[in-house]
Amino acid sequence: MTIGKIPAGEAVPVELGDRSYKIEIGRGLLKQVGTLAEHFAPGGRCAIVTDANVNAAQGEKLRAGLDAAQIEHATIEVPAGEKSKSTDMLDQVVDQLLAARLERSDLVLAFGGGVVGDLAGFAAAVTRRGMRFIQIPTSLLAQVDSSVGGKTGINSRHGKNLIGAFHQPVHVLIDLDVLTTLPNREFRAGYAEVVKYGLIKFPDFFKWLEQNHNAVFAHEEALAEAIAKSCEAKAEIVKNDETEKGERALLNLGHTFGHALEGFTSYDSDRLIHGEGVAIGMVLAHEFSNRLNLCSIDDVARMKAHLQTVGLPTTISDIPGDLPNADTLMDFIAQDKKVVRGSLTFILTNGIGKAYIANEIPPCEVNAFLKDRLSK
Amino acid sequence: MTIGKIPAGEAVPVELGDRSYKIEIGRGLLKQVGTLAEHFAPGGRCAIVTDANVNAAQGEKLRAGLDAAQIEHATIEVPAGEKSKSTDMLDQVVDQLLAARLERSDLVLAFGGGVVGDLAGFAAAVTRRGMRFIQIPTSLLAQVDSSVGGKTGINSRHGKNLIGAFHQPVHVLIDLDVLTTLPNREFRAGYAEVVKYGLIKFPDFFKWLEQNHNAVFAHEEALAEAIAKSCEAKAEIVKNDETEKGERALLNLGHTFGHALEGFTSYDSDRLIHGEGVAIGMVLAHEFSNRLNLCSIDDVARMKAHLQTVGLPTTISDIPGDLPNADTLMDFIAQDKKVVRGSLTFILTNGIGKAYIANEIPPCEVNAFLKDRLSK
Repeated sequence: MTIGKIPAGEAVPVELGDRSYKIEIGRGLLKQVGTLAEHFAPGGRCAIVTDANVNAAQGEKLRAGLDAAQIEHATIEVPAGEKSKSTDMLDQVVDQLLAARLERSDLVLAFGGGVVGDLAGFAAAVTRRGMRFIQIPTSLLAQVDSSVGGKTGINSRHGKNLIGAFHQPVHVLIDLDVLTTLPNREFRAGYAEVVKYGLIKFPDFFKWLEQNHNAVFAHEEALAEAIAKSCEAKAEIVKNDETEKGERALLNLGHTFGHALEGFTSYDSDRLIHGEGVAIGMVLAHEFSNRLNLCSIDDVARMKAHLQTVGLPTTISDIPGDLPNADTLMDFIAQDKKVVRGSLTFILTNGIGKAYIANEIPPCEVNAFLKDRLSK
Repeated sequence: MTIGKIPAGEAVPVELGDRSYKIEIGRGLLKQVGTLAEHFAPGGRCAIVTDANVNAAQGEKLRAGLDAAQIEHATIEVPAGEKSKSTDMLDQVVDQLLAARLERSDLVLAFGGGVVGDLAGFAAAVTRRGMRFIQIPTSLLAQVDSSVGGKTGINSRHGKNLIGAFHQPVHVLIDLDVLTTLPNREFRAGYAEVVKYGLIKFPDFFKWLEQNHNAVFAHEEALAEAIAKSCEAKAEIVKNDETEKGERALLNLGHTFGHALEGFTSYDSDRLIHGEGVAIGMVLAHEFSNRLNLCSIDDVARMKAHLQTVGLPTTISDIPGDLPNADTLMDFIAQDKKVVRGSLTFILTNGIGKAYIANEIPPCEVNAFLKDRLSK
């Protein structure tokens, strides 16, 4: 399959039977949110779930869109940051949805980055046994990854995303304009997930990114194209395997190592944010694959070079502060959910665009690899 | 449709496409739980979620069944009673499932009455974005109603069952032997839900109950038949409307009034338990239907007489302690989730076996009816 089949300006479909929906990508779309809400819930009401930063920067624009269509709305604001993906915050959001007397026929609008999308989507999934929601992602990472595919959830003290639901949105609205207020570091971290699709199974897309990354970072038309291609790639994978019984696990490329690094840095965003962890994790996955004679050293060098070119961290030592040792990282890896009956499941690769799911990786192999990496 | 088509001893199927499962009804079934767990999760592990009372009375028997098949298991015990359907208890159960390192391929066993089934099923729904679970209901109410159909959830300060998920079990195991330790009052309350199926759409079943209730209460073979017929009725309704967009709401007959009465008594089980609230609620629904010239006074008298014969409460004044006034009950009714765009949805009836969903009932009609009832 090649991606990029959808003509510019057309919505990307996510085909999931009676749970199908569209991803709409463009500029100035926030203004149209009223029409959209009226389409999905005629005469109904909306609750906007958002974080303090997004609310301050973009909240008024969204509410103006709803007001223009005379749609009643409530706003539920949570603190910005990964810590909001907690049971406490979930309880608060659900309680506020109920306090606002939202009915099952009303709508939740998840307006923010990955944290807000995961939290608000999960709150919608469990309020009144399932309310409909629209994803309105405001970070590049959320636009190309977390807002599409229906994974929602929060973190547990036992690990990331261990509590949640598969709950598909009824629509995804991607307004490129909201990215103009996104800090560069966040944009770059989101770009790591864009690169991921190329590395998993779309080598032509990876090549396209090598050629067009400057235009993407300059918010030119290439940005819309990169987002659309990423959404198409994700939609294709999710269509084949909605609840991650197989292929969908490919989307975890770099995430097992990445989550362990995030855990080690206690989700301290001064040190490491999710996309950065994924960038380092993807390099580690390629290096580990090379160590197992699966992937050429040239492919490792090529993917690492591209991530470095755009300014992403690519080694554990790029993380400021003290470094973990291999055993500490192994503890975090063992806590990760991608563990089946004691042996580890990793996404490994035979080269750029050739990732695959490797079950039964002996933990000692991973440990030896990490020891080797950390001694360099 | 007539129910009772399934030959005695055969499992009742719940047909829901790839979420289909069987309800197995018989005596001495707890012993076979190991075989069952091995079938659904070969080589896997189990977590038993149960309450203190059931654990004390029946826990060893269940664990012996798992031990016999050499299946590793953990037990998670919660306090008995409706108060365990809380966000706090949910968080604790999920945390313990994760602490026990249960994987997505392992199994949760919901072993208890309606509270445990709702709580454990919801915990299974949100742990690792959905674990499989088996319902092993130990109360008559759970066996004939809450364990079948996939409704799971907990209560909110805004009302009952407002937080939850549709999450179907992979199997329902109904062992009649566990009912021998069930208090008479609980058995009788569960019987109210059995009667409900007859009143909704199976008038022959209602007639059969009028003739066979003594044998049912004596735990004779008629008990297995009554449970099987109830499960068939529920399976039929759930098959047609899994997520309650229509017909499934019929199962709420008596529940809007019943929930309001439970809310008014603060879920104090000394005063009122769920099935008792449903019994009074069903009488009120018939009386209200009669007031609206929908249902004959003979049918009201007939259904009320049967509930009285088995010792169930049938009027609000049967509840010990102070009585509510109509306005208080209306507040509880307005909080109930069966409210769409401000007007009330009630399950009304044209007579025994002829219930239907009535939208847009004016709240003032209900209020006048309750005022009238409470002045008598």
